[in-house]
Amino acid sequence: MLEPVLKRIDDGMDASIERWSELLRIPSVSTDPAYADDARRAAHWLIEQFEALGFTMELHETEGHPVVLGHHPGPGGDVPHLLYYGHYDVQPADPVELWDSGPFEPTVVDSVHGKKVVARGAVDDKGQLMMWVEALRAWQAEHGTLPVETTVLLEGEEEIGSKHLRPFLEAQRPRLAAADVCVVSDTSMWDVDTPAITYSLRGLLYTEITCRGPSHDLHSGFYGGAVVNPLNALARVLADLHDDNGRIRIPGFYDQVLEPGESERAAWESLDMDEAAFLEGAGVTAGGGERDRSLPERIWTRPTGDVNGLYGGYTGAGAKTVIATEGTAKVSFRLVPEQDPDAIAEGFRRFLDEHTPAGCSCELTIHSAAPAIRIDPESAWLRTACAAMGDIYGREAVPIGCGGSIPIAAWARGILGIDTLLMGFSLDDDAMHSPNEKFEITCFERGMKSHAALLARIAEGRV
Amino acid sequence: MLEPVLKRIDDGMDASIERWSELLRIPSVSTDPAYADDARRAAHWLIEQFEALGFTMELHETEGHPVVLGHHPGPGGDVPHLLYYGHYDVQPADPVELWDSGPFEPTVVDSVHGKKVVARGAVDDKGQLMMWVEALRAWQAEHGTLPVETTVLLEGEEEIGSKHLRPFLEAQRPRLAAADVCVVSDTSMWDVDTPAITYSLRGLLYTEITCRGPSHDLHSGFYGGAVVNPLNALARVLADLHDDNGRIRIPGFYDQVLEPGESERAAWESLDMDEAAFLEGAGVTAGGGERDRSLPERIWTRPTGDVNGLYGGYTGAGAKTVIATEGTAKVSFRLVPEQDPDAIAEGFRRFLDEHTPAGCSCELTIHSAAPAIRIDPESAWLRTACAAMGDIYGREAVPIGCGGSIPIAAWARGILGIDTLLMGFSLDDDAMHSPNEKFEITCFERGMKSHAALLARIAEGRV
Repeated sequence: MLEPVLKRIDDGMDASIERWSELLRIPSVSTDPAYADDARRAAHWLIEQFEALGFTMELHETEGHPVVLGHHPGPGGDVPHLLYYGHYDVQPADPVELWDSGPFEPTVVDSVHGKKVVARGAVDDKGQLMMWVEALRAWQAEHGTLPVETTVLLEGEEEIGSKHLRPFLEAQRPRLAAADVCVVSDTSMWDVDTPAITYSLRGLLYTEITCRGPSHDLHSGFYGGAVVNPLNALARVLADLHDDNGRIRIPGFYDQVLEPGESERAAWESLDMDEAAFLEGAGVTAGGGERDRSLPERIWTRPTGDVNGLYGGYTGAGAKTVIATEGTAKVSFRLVPEQDPDAIAEGFRRFLDEHTPAGCSCELTIHSAAPAIRIDPESAWLRTACAAMGDIYGREAVPIGCGGSIPIAAWARGILGIDTLLMGFSLDDDAMHSPNEKFEITCFERGMKSHAALLARIAEGRV
Repeated sequence: MLEPVLKRIDDGMDASIERWSELLRIPSVSTDPAYADDARRAAHWLIEQFEALGFTMELHETEGHPVVLGHHPGPGGDVPHLLYYGHYDVQPADPVELWDSGPFEPTVVDSVHGKKVVARGAVDDKGQLMMWVEALRAWQAEHGTLPVETTVLLEGEEEIGSKHLRPFLEAQRPRLAAADVCVVSDTSMWDVDTPAITYSLRGLLYTEITCRGPSHDLHSGFYGGAVVNPLNALARVLADLHDDNGRIRIPGFYDQVLEPGESERAAWESLDMDEAAFLEGAGVTAGGGERDRSLPERIWTRPTGDVNGLYGGYTGAGAKTVIATEGTAKVSFRLVPEQDPDAIAEGFRRFLDEHTPAGCSCELTIHSAAPAIRIDPESAWLRTACAAMGDIYGREAVPIGCGGSIPIAAWARGILGIDTLLMGFSLDDDAMHSPNEKFEITCFERGMKSHAALLARIAEGRV
């Protein structure tokens, strides 16, 4: 059943890229309220796509951006039920001046792997979600229906912590928990010819600290040396967060963290990760993080704390001799399995209370909190997905870890009781969240085909 | 000779306030190039004022804002020669939303001391410089000339480090060094009824650090824990700047710092400084700075290091999981007598090299560097000025220290070889550099009269 679908994918390649580009032209930046209408436009655009494939679609309002839910009954009878998830929101495009072309004007340019599409969201997640949309489209066109009962779930707040998705999943649990497995494309390959499925994902606690001191801006000449400067205090608190070995100093932070097993360590060693190449890709001259921990350990199974933004005082050109009233830092923690985001947040709050000097106060705001997730690499669905990707690439997908967070994977397990197949096709140099984000057309093409191969294996009962 | 001049000042009060307000309406913010034309407008406005008093005026171009120089021969004969200095530039008005009225729309409102004028620059330095302008005007009107040979020097870059004033003073040394003493009003009173002359001033080294890491923004999920985050590194470097006792950790920083003498300590004790009131004025709940040092010591004779601004990474609303390429901090040091600003800058540069972790680099920019200054409290000119202020207030001015920096005082001594009389009339709650900056009209009035009294003492040979 697969061959004619693959041919349709090849024949429809240009049309697929054009639809993907249509979606990329909608600047659905979720974090900035100025783009709220665009986020809604992206949701409606996707609804139209699925309605054309025979889905029944619903747009659900939230206090943030809407959630889109769709359903296709499939061929009838006792077939598996897949829940596809994707997110239609993207990161902000700034700094815009570093882009070679408009971030919301998708451009096809040459790459070392053939051609690539450059745009904000090219890979994360518009390109990756359009792979399975296009695979479903090709299958429907060839076979007149889908081989599985299918639910699609599309949200617009993944880049800002999926705040409203969790209550939505809880409210819709009866319908969604009927699915057998969740399918997501929002992760990476090992390299351009080595497919991978991510089986462990770090969680995320994203916070903001505001350190306040004087009630009004002070002249640093008259008050300097007499009062606690909240920007100095903020720097001190942030510096206190790590010890000299790169470990987080929040009491109890590592209590639940599991050491990797022998087999996990062996698997990492077999990957023979090239740390120099990794650091070169990041454009840094030396690595960081915890001492005495290997690179895969540091990025896949160890928690972290990063300052993502800093702001306070005079930031214009030149000099202003001011002691500011307050400074702000955005601070996020990547979490690993068994760490409880709420307990870590509480520990951080206590840490701030203890480390903020008298004369200042630190207020903590929690932007989002999602736990880490781990999927059994020997489960039937994961094995099937690895094999389906093997059908296209000629080598089975390898199970890998991932430093990023995808809340849906944690909630699919915790709320719906199902596993998630993280079939990802991005490459390390795709510049996700950075200027000139891109997605290779070869990845897009083989991603579509891999999704078709998964449907074929299910249709043929080879699960 | 003084009485009729004082009467003229009283009679012309409304006109004086109106001229002062005219100057305040010109938004001559020196640090922001957008206001360059306004700075020039302020310079020309002042030229007109002095030309009306019989001065010969010159506008000197610099690479920044112009310097205004004026000369009045006085009555002829062997009279003293005074060099009056003021600055026509002001600090930025931001945060503008915290002002109760437009920062460049001077407003007269009630205050606990009668009436006050609220505007950016009300006191610093437009209000204070207009006091001696109006005193000269009243004397000229009453006596038909001035009792002294008079040079006026007005710059537009005091708030940004007076970068072009130093070469100007060097170039014009022959003319300017002919003055006997420099007169400046840009400092504070002890309280509203206790006049003060500042005899020691801290210097200022104003720098900017940019800490750079990855060559492009990175996703904190994929790279967090593997690379050195430049914002974390910046926080660490800034925190390292002070030890737990509030002392600066740059090697050699305190080598030239003098301990106060017995008489100095005794003078401070006699002032019976109210630390609680001082901190309340700053709107803080606890003091800061070096442990085991008294408040006057900390703000007058001890050097400091303050973070004046912080910027880096994502600073918009909500969350962005980014590891930024760089972060920036504005860091300034208040210096005390004998500390060499250039040597301190070099020490700071070495400190940054040593404290910046591998994987990041810190670039240091010097915005300005001015040494501290100290004037002999027993000198004839200082004694005369203290007595002149006593003629108006009924009690002689007390010599006090000041934490701020006035480069002209250092350069008058170092380049021109003359002392500076820092006759200041601002109060601690004048909100210099802050929203709702104000100047009390009683201070403005008695300031004008004090300047007239100084002229009278000179005219009568009572120096």
